[in-house]
Amino acid sequence: MAAAQPLSWQSIAARKQKEIYDAIPSAWIVDKSLLVGHNLTDLPKKCPHIMSKEELFITESRAVDILSRIRARKWTSYQVTLAFCKRAALAHQATNCLALIMFDSALEEAKKLDAYMEKHGKPIGPLHGLPISVKEHIYLANTPATSGLISWADAPSPHDALICKIFRQAGAVFHVKTTNPQTLMALETHSNLFGRTSNPFNTSLTSGGSSGGESALVAMRGSPLGIGTDIGGSIRGPSGFCGGWGLKASVARIPHSGLSGLHAGMENIIGCVGPMANSLADLRLFCSVALAKEPWDEEPSLIDIPWRNTTAADLPKRLRIGVMFNDCAVLPHPPITRALRHTVAKLRAAGHEIVEWNPQHHASLLSWINKAYFLDGGDEYKSTLLQESDPPVPIIQWLLDSEANTRHTIEETWTLNSTRDKLRTAFSLQWKEAGIDALLCPVNASCASAHDESKYWGYTAVFNATDLPGVVFPVTEVRETDTWEEGTVPVQGEKDAMYRKFWDEGGAGKYKDAPVNLQLVGKRLREERLLAVAEVVEGCLKEDKQSVQKVRNPVQKEEMVQSRL
Amino acid sequence: MAAAQPLSWQSIAARKQKEIYDAIPSAWIVDKSLLVGHNLTDLPKKCPHIMSKEELFITESRAVDILSRIRARKWTSYQVTLAFCKRAALAHQATNCLALIMFDSALEEAKKLDAYMEKHGKPIGPLHGLPISVKEHIYLANTPATSGLISWADAPSPHDALICKIFRQAGAVFHVKTTNPQTLMALETHSNLFGRTSNPFNTSLTSGGSSGGESALVAMRGSPLGIGTDIGGSIRGPSGFCGGWGLKASVARIPHSGLSGLHAGMENIIGCVGPMANSLADLRLFCSVALAKEPWDEEPSLIDIPWRNTTAADLPKRLRIGVMFNDCAVLPHPPITRALRHTVAKLRAAGHEIVEWNPQHHASLLSWINKAYFLDGGDEYKSTLLQESDPPVPIIQWLLDSEANTRHTIEETWTLNSTRDKLRTAFSLQWKEAGIDALLCPVNASCASAHDESKYWGYTAVFNATDLPGVVFPVTEVRETDTWEEGTVPVQGEKDAMYRKFWDEGGAGKYKDAPVNLQLVGKRLREERLLAVAEVVEGCLKEDKQSVQKVRNPVQKEEMVQSRL
Repeated sequence: MAAAQPLSWQSIAARKQKEIYDAIPSAWIVDKSLLVGHNLTDLPKKCPHIMSKEELFITESRAVDILSRIRARKWTSYQVTLAFCKRAALAHQATNCLALIMFDSALEEAKKLDAYMEKHGKPIGPLHGLPISVKEHIYLANTPATSGLISWADAPSPHDALICKIFRQAGAVFHVKTTNPQTLMALETHSNLFGRTSNPFNTSLTSGGSSGGESALVAMRGSPLGIGTDIGGSIRGPSGFCGGWGLKASVARIPHSGLSGLHAGMENIIGCVGPMANSLADLRLFCSVALAKEPWDEEPSLIDIPWRNTTAADLPKRLRIGVMFNDCAVLPHPPITRALRHTVAKLRAAGHEIVEWNPQHHASLLSWINKAYFLDGGDEYKSTLLQESDPPVPIIQWLLDSEANTRHTIEETWTLNSTRDKLRTAFSLQWKEAGIDALLCPVNASCASAHDESKYWGYTAVFNATDLPGVVFPVTEVRETDTWEEGTVPVQGEKDAMYRKFWDEGGAGKYKDAPVNLQLVGKRLREERLLAVAEVVEGCLKEDKQSVQKVRNPVQKEEMVQSRL
Repeated sequence: MAAAQPLSWQSIAARKQKEIYDAIPSAWIVDKSLLVGHNLTDLPKKCPHIMSKEELFITESRAVDILSRIRARKWTSYQVTLAFCKRAALAHQATNCLALIMFDSALEEAKKLDAYMEKHGKPIGPLHGLPISVKEHIYLANTPATSGLISWADAPSPHDALICKIFRQAGAVFHVKTTNPQTLMALETHSNLFGRTSNPFNTSLTSGGSSGGESALVAMRGSPLGIGTDIGGSIRGPSGFCGGWGLKASVARIPHSGLSGLHAGMENIIGCVGPMANSLADLRLFCSVALAKEPWDEEPSLIDIPWRNTTAADLPKRLRIGVMFNDCAVLPHPPITRALRHTVAKLRAAGHEIVEWNPQHHASLLSWINKAYFLDGGDEYKSTLLQESDPPVPIIQWLLDSEANTRHTIEETWTLNSTRDKLRTAFSLQWKEAGIDALLCPVNASCASAHDESKYWGYTAVFNATDLPGVVFPVTEVRETDTWEEGTVPVQGEKDAMYRKFWDEGGAGKYKDAPVNLQLVGKRLREERLLAVAEVVEGCLKEDKQSVQKVRNPVQKEEMVQSRL
């Protein structure tokens, strides 16, 4: 008997993508005419036959507010979960952000939680009834974890990742898993398996990566809180590209065990699990619940520092904040420079001190981490992505060609570890000497990149290399008037030239409606303090934020007025 | 012109060893007749022409007491330093424990500190005027750091290790560096460069390793506080073999940067810097000063948990302590089993709960760490120890032959990392389920081993593999009556058979006067709590300890009586 012909990647991908679409109830499928245009963030509002005004209001609320309404018995978990399932279905049709749909089991779970609340008169835990979305490669029991690989298309999660286990016990309802790119190693989200995920603000742009399904979904308000991962910018990049809030903590601060992925066990550089959401409060919620029950017993590499309730009120009145306008490698695009200048002005006006940060060690740190990503010269990536079974998508092909060329001996990896420690020490001493409370800087040289143009991660990966926590937050959006400043520095190298060309090809029009986020970086293991500084910065930007909010959440404002009446 | 003939290792070693002896003032050289006999701990008492009674008293005081007397202007740093220099010189003649003598610069530094005290009326820092000894491979500016290698015989320290820098700033006086074995990878202290270091209680036995110069010196009271390092038992083994107190903290708790050694940058298993002393109070002193000034800015891998003042008073009245009599690989020698039974009885009598610990994961953890020590198959060790230039000493030859045979690819090292994490998790969950406050167990299967017989490190290395803090403390000493218990378990394997033979070859007589220490192990990053439990155990053993003290420090008791008169 002849051996069965192995299935082509095309047929595996088609089956997978069909499974996702088939899990959407037909009543929630929208007419194609609604999916025309570059900005699809208002799709839910255009679907009154699918989402009620109350459902729009629910899905545009912060996780903390949803939880308090569930606790106050104003909303049921079923009602909340149904609203998010509908909106997640719309988000997927707009951006292709879902890797797995679990609406049925989520609604079932929500019913059980409502019954629990009914019976006991109290929530089962701090996340009682809250829908939470999970990046695809994070283990969730009874779901596949593919890392965007055809060959792992049905690879089962052996159990819940620790973060999912904790959140499940705290009462979370998992309604969807979200797309991540082929191999995970890209700042955009494209794979043969799932296809391409787009930015809801402008579908010609990427939602970022590798947590780009999460960022698109959270921006579409298809989830109030998402679980992402970041080893070079994979939370901060996509949250930044989609106008959300995202936190990459220090390594070993947030439970991290239970992920699929290539290079398992590689520790020369380690990634982080973290929150993606639409508010600072929801980042704090994520961290405090993650650490509330001393997870270090189950994940011994975690550092047993509980989550501390540091807020802006605990900080000195006058902060000293470093600012980096340019890492001297790739100059940020005009809207980002504008956002930085604006934020600096607001901070100065509020009495804070601003000092310029010298990126003297950034190039070495980036060079170091680019080696650390591919210590095996990309061998495992290349052998997994065979030309016939799962050909590299363009951004991965580019990555493997440009970065994954040198195989290291174990002795060379030890030398690289020593190099990293020396660089970290130099960076840390520079920080100490600067005496800053936080560093304000871009998330990326670009706002959301056009598809296949995410080719620089220096603004985020340097803080993986230094293991410093970074939080990204929305500041403004691209404006038609955005253009290079007069007296812009000369081109700083090949990659800078590439990024200037990316902008010049279409200017502000190319990036129309893209959100503009910034990043704040703090001291290692002082995530709480970093978020407190972010609270201060958010306060200074408040007027602006309200205007951004107005653009992004028109319904919420309207509803809030109604609910006040 | 012909190239100069390279110097033989014998001539380099002879020069090095002569330099050490030449640095001892001739007045402090003792007659050979005083160095006869197996137990040389009373040598200082036999040298009234060198050490006054007050100097004996000073050198037998705890570091904390010396510091308070210096602060109270009862003693000068010069007086204290001189006393320790004398006694260190005697210790070296008894045990060959010194790798570098810095008496002149130490006395000079002590004078400066005295002048500072005179001028300012207050100490320069918390270690004002205290002599501290440093294991040889720890960088101390202007000294060599050889790791016991002929080829590094004069390799300079590029700067102070961070721990030395901190202690120097706190007012410490560095008077000697102490021997460590060839390559550092042995639980005894023997090198071509420095020769062999002996146990002062019985010179046929080893002082342990790799911090075996420190353990011999501290036991001889030639230093009130020593800085050691431990990656498999290198603090705990030697402290245990010499009846002292030693602490291996969790990785990244105590400043660790600035060490010489092979395998630089290897991180699959990481060692720790830690204290070796004669009292629990002095271990606490070391840790609290080490962390007082937030050293994490200078060593970014440190975890920024300050030293917490946890004492026995902060613990529950009734502790639950696990006990392991046998790791099911190598049965401890009879005196150790007696010490365990005695300690358990005392703890029970004081109302504490004792539960037996199942060493179900120990063999796997030990097997894992033995691979981690030699991921390169011992290549760097073997290429450094060339037959002609620095032939392996017997214990290192044995080690390389038996453990260093498999070279790993980087992918295999990643798999080993994953294995380690799984084992750590299993161990941690077992601990959680057992609900114990600490684990009481042997330090080693043997009390101080005979030279070249330290061939098992399972009782310490398992707690490097799990990254748990361990403290060793004196309990009793070998007695003539020590013998295997009736009904002793059958031989558990080859290494067990070897260790039973070691004992049977001479019985208690072979180990005459050897101290018997035990080990307490705590939870990761909870060093303070571990020491608090050790305080409880010490309290329960108090009567016993006084009798040990009597043997070890006859002069101190006598002096104390005198000082009371």
